[in-house]
Amino acid sequence: MNAIAPKFTPTGRSRLRRRPQRGRYDEAAVFEILDAGVMAHVGYAIDGQPFVTPTAYWREGRRLYWHGAAASRMIGAVGVGAPVCVTVSFLDGFVVGRSGFIHSLNYRSVMAFGRARRVDGLEAKRAAMDSFIDRLYAGRAAKLRPATEAELKQITLVEMEIEEASAKVRDAGVADLPADAGWAPWCGVFPVETRIGAPRPEPGMGAGGAPTADLAPYAEGARLDAALTQAAIMKTDQGLPVST
Amino acid sequence: MNAIAPKFTPTGRSRLRRRPQRGRYDEAAVFEILDAGVMAHVGYAIDGQPFVTPTAYWREGRRLYWHGAAASRMIGAVGVGAPVCVTVSFLDGFVVGRSGFIHSLNYRSVMAFGRARRVDGLEAKRAAMDSFIDRLYAGRAAKLRPATEAELKQITLVEMEIEEASAKVRDAGVADLPADAGWAPWCGVFPVETRIGAPRPEPGMGAGGAPTADLAPYAEGARLDAALTQAAIMKTDQGLPVST
Repeated sequence: MNAIAPKFTPTGRSRLRRRPQRGRYDEAAVFEILDAGVMAHVGYAIDGQPFVTPTAYWREGRRLYWHGAAASRMIGAVGVGAPVCVTVSFLDGFVVGRSGFIHSLNYRSVMAFGRARRVDGLEAKRAAMDSFIDRLYAGRAAKLRPATEAELKQITLVEMEIEEASAKVRDAGVADLPADAGWAPWCGVFPVETRIGAPRPEPGMGAGGAPTADLAPYAEGARLDAALTQAAIMKTDQGLPVST
Repeated sequence: MNAIAPKFTPTGRSRLRRRPQRGRYDEAAVFEILDAGVMAHVGYAIDGQPFVTPTAYWREGRRLYWHGAAASRMIGAVGVGAPVCVTVSFLDGFVVGRSGFIHSLNYRSVMAFGRARRVDGLEAKRAAMDSFIDRLYAGRAAKLRPATEAELKQITLVEMEIEEASAKVRDAGVADLPADAGWAPWCGVFPVETRIGAPRPEPGMGAGGAPTADLAPYAEGARLDAALTQAAIMKTDQGLPVST
């Protein structure tokens, strides 16, 4: 790790208390996980009651974006500058050992903290929604029927500057514990892999044929995290516009 | 749906505001999703600051269980009867259409609300941790080196009675919008599938050979949700003890 690599500065909010050796605060580690996902769990509280809403998101620099309907509880609660925790996680495997204590899961996760704000203005919303489409499917936004004013008004977009974030990863085999010696159940890891399945074209809609270049990352059998990472790179390589 | 099927009674907290046609409140729908997962996102607030911690969980009846280290921030915050939201979600597909507005994701999710409490007492903790092992790997707990008192003391276990819960599912193709007619990008769904990979035995640990019957659901190529559902059924079928 480069000593001058950009890092988030953890406070008590994001510093790992448990298993600090699994934690990373550098942008590279945090962004790698964020760019490999599309579903985040957005945490917010209303009058002390916590809510965790699964939602699609994307990242631009140190900002996260997500959207919802104007009528959404989540959007109403987080769009006013309330503190938010956005968590992205991947399950990577089951770790089975010789004692219950040693059983574990392999995973990657990021907890990102900040305050969300609504992005208003139809053109700002249009640019952001196009940016989201292009983040998933590079170059696709230009091929779509443009959003109407009525559609843009139905969408509420929020932006969150990441104030601090931590990444946490377990990627290992079965831990060795002296007390477990001599016990003989099967031990090892069952990896968990999330992949793209066979595409299902929508009958009678669009041009048909094979999926176009913007959809190339989602080839059958591709790992989801690799596809999303590749899609993000394609957007950058094509110099496509971002939200702001 | 049977009119007398057990249901959760939604209040303003869990009733779907957006797209109510995607929502379900019956136990069958909620439990089906909860039993297909092992990683939940636990939401809680400390002094108004929300946190979302990914963690392994399991279900028994209307109760959810999870555990952590005694030193964990999450456990300290939720174990004292604070309101909690536990969310489980699965990404099932990318839905690509002819306008940005119509793009979507297929998914299944549950938001479960309640108050968590610590389960203290070494024997209660032992029973619960064995129950968790058996929920994932039916019959395995009896084959493992038993937990020591010191190990049980390091674990903090929490239990949450689900007060209310909602399930939300999108499982469909591309929505048809009259305004999209005539636009010709490729349209359809890219399914997302999470499966078990090739097992990686831990060299020099345990008996080796092929994975044993308790691990049968995690056969290479099995869908993760199906494996976890099958494992839960195996535990019930074998009459293995539960936490309480």
